[in-house]
Amino acid sequence: MKPVCITGIARAEAEIIAQLGEAGVSTTHEAFGRMGLMQPYMRPIYAGASIAGSAVTVLAQPGDNWMLHVAVEQCQPGDILVVAITSPSTDGYFGDLLATSLQARGVRGLIIDAGVRDVKTLTQMGFPVWSKAISAKGTVKATLGSVNVPVICAGALVHPGDVIVADDDGVCVVPRLSAAEVAKTAMARMANEEDKRKRLAAGVLGLDMYAMREGLAKAGLVYRDQNDT
Amino acid sequence: MKPVCITGIARAEAEIIAQLGEAGVSTTHEAFGRMGLMQPYMRPIYAGASIAGSAVTVLAQPGDNWMLHVAVEQCQPGDILVVAITSPSTDGYFGDLLATSLQARGVRGLIIDAGVRDVKTLTQMGFPVWSKAISAKGTVKATLGSVNVPVICAGALVHPGDVIVADDDGVCVVPRLSAAEVAKTAMARMANEEDKRKRLAAGVLGLDMYAMREGLAKAGLVYRDQNDT
Amino acid sequence: MKPVCITGIARAEAEIIAQLGEAGVSTTHEAFGRMGLMQPYMRPIYAGASIAGSAVTVLAQPGDNWMLHVAVEQCQPGDILVVAITSPSTDGYFGDLLATSLQARGVRGLIIDAGVRDVKTLTQMGFPVWSKAISAKGTVKATLGSVNVPVICAGALVHPGDVIVADDDGVCVVPRLSAAEVAKTAMARMANEEDKRKRLAAGVLGLDMYAMREGLAKAGLVYRDQNDT
Amino acid sequence: MKPVCITGIARAEAEIIAQLGEAGVSTTHEAFGRMGLMQPYMRPIYAGASIAGSAVTVLAQPGDNWMLHVAVEQCQPGDILVVAITSPSTDGYFGDLLATSLQARGVRGLIIDAGVRDVKTLTQMGFPVWSKAISAKGTVKATLGSVNVPVICAGALVHPGDVIVADDDGVCVVPRLSAAEVAKTAMARMANEEDKRKRLAAGVLGLDMYAMREGLAKAGLVYRDQNDT
Amino acid sequence: MKPVCITGIARAEAEIIAQLGEAGVSTTHEAFGRMGLMQPYMRPIYAGASIAGSAVTVLAQPGDNWMLHVAVEQCQPGDILVVAITSPSTDGYFGDLLATSLQARGVRGLIIDAGVRDVKTLTQMGFPVWSKAISAKGTVKATLGSVNVPVICAGALVHPGDVIVADDDGVCVVPRLSAAEVAKTAMARMANEEDKRKRLAAGVLGLDMYAMREGLAKAGLVYRDQNDT
Amino acid sequence: MKPVCITGIARAEAEIIAQLGEAGVSTTHEAFGRMGLMQPYMRPIYAGASIAGSAVTVLAQPGDNWMLHVAVEQCQPGDILVVAITSPSTDGYFGDLLATSLQARGVRGLIIDAGVRDVKTLTQMGFPVWSKAISAKGTVKATLGSVNVPVICAGALVHPGDVIVADDDGVCVVPRLSAAEVAKTAMARMANEEDKRKRLAAGVLGLDMYAMREGLAKAGLVYRDQNDT
Repeated sequence: MKPVCITGIARAEAEIIAQLGEAGVSTTHEAFGRMGLMQPYMRPIYAGASIAGSAVTVLAQPGDNWMLHVAVEQCQPGDILVVAITSPSTDGYFGDLLATSLQARGVRGLIIDAGVRDVKTLTQMGFPVWSKAISAKGTVKATLGSVNVPVICAGALVHPGDVIVADDDGVCVVPRLSAAEVAKTAMARMANEEDKRKRLAAGVLGLDMYAMREGLAKAGLVYRDQNDT
Repeated sequence: MKPVCITGIARAEAEIIAQLGEAGVSTTHEAFGRMGLMQPYMRPIYAGASIAGSAVTVLAQPGDNWMLHVAVEQCQPGDILVVAITSPSTDGYFGDLLATSLQARGVRGLIIDAGVRDVKTLTQMGFPVWSKAISAKGTVKATLGSVNVPVICAGALVHPGDVIVADDDGVCVVPRLSAAEVAKTAMARMANEEDKRKRLAAGVLGLDMYAMREGLAKAGLVYRDQNDT
Repeated sequence: MKPVCITGIARAEAEIIAQLGEAGVSTTHEAFGRMGLMQPYMRPIYAGASIAGSAVTVLAQPGDNWMLHVAVEQCQPGDILVVAITSPSTDGYFGDLLATSLQARGVRGLIIDAGVRDVKTLTQMGFPVWSKAISAKGTVKATLGSVNVPVICAGALVHPGDVIVADDDGVCVVPRLSAAEVAKTAMARMANEEDKRKRLAAGVLGLDMYAMREGLAKAGLVYRDQNDT
Repeated sequence: MKPVCITGIARAEAEIIAQLGEAGVSTTHEAFGRMGLMQPYMRPIYAGASIAGSAVTVLAQPGDNWMLHVAVEQCQPGDILVVAITSPSTDGYFGDLLATSLQARGVRGLIIDAGVRDVKTLTQMGFPVWSKAISAKGTVKATLGSVNVPVICAGALVHPGDVIVADDDGVCVVPRLSAAEVAKTAMARMANEEDKRKRLAAGVLGLDMYAMREGLAKAGLVYRDQNDT
Repeated sequence: MKPVCITGIARAEAEIIAQLGEAGVSTTHEAFGRMGLMQPYMRPIYAGASIAGSAVTVLAQPGDNWMLHVAVEQCQPGDILVVAITSPSTDGYFGDLLATSLQARGVRGLIIDAGVRDVKTLTQMGFPVWSKAISAKGTVKATLGSVNVPVICAGALVHPGDVIVADDDGVCVVPRLSAAEVAKTAMARMANEEDKRKRLAAGVLGLDMYAMREGLAKAGLVYRDQNDT
Repeated sequence: MKPVCITGIARAEAEIIAQLGEAGVSTTHEAFGRMGLMQPYMRPIYAGASIAGSAVTVLAQPGDNWMLHVAVEQCQPGDILVVAITSPSTDGYFGDLLATSLQARGVRGLIIDAGVRDVKTLTQMGFPVWSKAISAKGTVKATLGSVNVPVICAGALVHPGDVIVADDDGVCVVPRLSAAEVAKTAMARMANEEDKRKRLAAGVLGLDMYAMREGLAKAGLVYRDQNDT
């Protein structure tokens, strides 16, 4: 791949992004037909963060964070930096200095299929990160990669400008042009879930609420008392 | 295996269960002759929870949570749902709706050799889960498994009605009929540990308290000053 | 290896150790030429702890914590116990009783390439541990190992008396005789980072602050607007 | 667990065992209702071996192969030694000397949820092993375990005398009392598969042979030409 | 995702595919700018196979191989079946019956980010497979996926009709429209390597052949005799 | 670490190296007091190779094989190249061109804590490799490391000139100055094992040959007939 930094990428509408952020990862993933989820090894460095934003993507080389510095300049308020590496790495590509720079530009967080460091400071700064590892291992700045090209990050395809949703359940990617439709479905799903939650809390069984009993019987489920075994 | 849901399972006495819960996982595991422990990849979704209860078991298919809904109906106050999958999976079988339903029935927590989602809400609800993974990946309801059959969950054999103890150290299973004896041993062990703790805090060495010096010398341990090397 | 317990080991100066502790793992690792870092699977049992101290080393056998008891006697205030196992293990070698004993002797923490248990109590005691696993699995006291010999712990070589630095970013080892020089470099690095942080927070780009633009262009980086693709 | 060596275990009939061996792991696993399979990390040390026999079980301690020597005496011609460890281990519990001893007693192979060594010699001897690892790491003989107690080996429950089937596809366990029925089902399945194989080789599609088209359409599968997208 | 089976996909020219097959995975990967490689956990079930062909893609559900049967009908001579799963799985989706069917249609091999079984028979048939696991675990036919949609398989994006190259070094994907150019580069690279190989075999050092000495010195490499240390 | 290439390293005597090679990994590891073994994830790219030689060590950067070219020049007939990486990597650092160069210099094999490629050609050349992975992923030549410094490779400390023994059981390191003594012990052990092998083949039980019965009884082992349970 010829190293390149793509500028002027398109982004989704802020309102759509906000709706997906409100829905959260699990609901967004369902609303998007159970697609777009990154592998579950991507974990937040601290619990409770919940963000949504537009992807600025980086394809970096193993043990080399040069392109992250290039990417910072391409970030706008509301963006999320998404970093893929050309081969598996746990190195600490990112620390509090890069986070300071991103925070100064209004970036909402980092998704990286590798390691980060300075996690205590990042936590104090309230700069959320989802990563594969935490590692103090430093990186060099020697070999080019690319910025704002399509990348595969933790098993999910991300195009620049796609909507990223991240919370304690993981990270989900919604293509920019599907975002409005997915957001609409997600909003409907949330309303629906609230009603179900109330009924279940009142003691209604899912077996009845979802009308599962007939299907289970047809599939062959048998009930048997232990004492009759 | 013919799909089946066993009803009317026997459970251990509440007082015995309470004693094992008080003892916690590490002491229970020791009191049970170092048996019954699940693999250490089973981790709580939040720190500090500590529960004990009677196992209602589920054997589910990969990517399919149909049987969890069947199991809910079999749960009584004080139970713990234990879910094994027929092959390794990290999918999110369980979320806040199922937790709401279980909590409404007085269930104390979930042990699952797979993934869960909605962990922020589960944490807010105070519904503890020990799992192999956290994942937003949804599941289907298409293929039967069984409820209240013996299962192997994270390397431990669990029969329905066995006592489950779970805390920050992991998850331990005690067969129903051994529970009283294990609880008695655990209580004795706790009393004994309290005394040891005080002596160690006062500066007594384990080498002396456990009378290890002779055994070490007999086994051949040599002390040598670094400057004499 | 003949089992041996080496006594009378030399340690680094307290002030040097304190400086490395202040610098933390990531800065120490950089100041030491990016050497000495343990593998990133070593994680703290609770977030926020940050320690530095002199290594008392243990080489223990699989599933056997006998030598930890021997090591306790060799510990002085300000030490950190570093435990390597002769083959991979996740067993729970260490719990609250051993921690009570170490805390009574002024030991600052434990680094163990295996498992620990009683983590809730350890957290309440404020006794920090970095480990490969959390596991209630008990160990025996049957086979000798050694104390205060050089060990390889989580991929890093540790000699007794080396300086250990551990925080949320992981664990780093600095040889005793290199500690003063590394501490000096680390202090300088910290001062320098503070200045960089301020500039980045003010919106200066790393591309400019580090004068990277020429190097990137020379290496062949091309900027291209998405609409011109 | 009190250390014990159980003698005089019952075994399945030789003819039944031979039938399951002929069926192989995948067919046996299907015939047994998709149960009894060990985890897929259990791999043969050389390709092509295929055995079936009666389980003599060992529960050994981490890094300690004492009980394997005890188990040898309990083995009869046609047996298979099945070794579980009380916690995860990759140590080399077994080498060419133990294999020589087992081969002298007519034992057909070894299943071990840990490591083995001398694999070149074992291969030359034609003594098949399915293991989690290959490792030269030696073990001690210091702590008791048990022989011929129920064990969980690589995720499967094995009682002494159960039938073990092992080939390039993995390892499957069939309870002694279910063996005759499973063997009968397996034989029928094999006959059936031979016919299917011929039809598929002749170009008949599985879609037609298994009459899947209607089910797929009902479930909602849509065919669309790429050029019409 | 709406379940769909796309028909009439376009393929690359046979001659181009043959050239990439001759080049093999490592050379193709280099010729394609070091892109397109699947994760190294994808291993052949037997050594020595080397294939290239056009991808027919499948997106299947966990533990469910229904869509593989749908995909068979879409295969032509020279194709390679590429199977991705919607979440991580090691189940045995594929065995000798499906292989018989594919072989009858002239399919060259299977790439699957999950498990396969009947590997002894597959080896005897000479039907090569690259997979994540070998497992006898059976699958169901209950939930739809898709055929000939873009999939991410073992970390690589595959569109239907892309060229797949697989050998002992792994699996590489080349987009259909880039195949001709990559093949040309690969052919040139192979000619060039042959010359290098001869010179190195004659004792010429890479340091000289690649003219590395000046660059190493400029980067700061120092040579020092051990006795002068 | 300042990048450096150390020249003029000392090596063990050829006869000693040959003896350790004859003993093989498992016997050498035992003769060396069960020390020096690399982690069991280090596997040969083909079965049956068995080598011993003097270590020429490389410390390379992630995804960068520049220093391997530097190391080639330092190799003499009978050497083995040992490559450690500063952080975990599976990239393909080494292929048939480097192997051709090493073979031209009489190097006996490669030990690398990362990936290799061109494994089919390496196998045909008879150039043995023990590695963590097989991967076609290419590397760059951009950042210095060191040659002939002490390295930790797959968990074992290797000094340049140490004796490396590698076969199907793994890889073992013996420090140069200990090699003569270890070789002597290994030779004695081999003679002893041959006698044991004959007795075991004749049906003598290890329980009797090693006189274990008394120790087992004293430790508390109980024999019990299954029918008396």
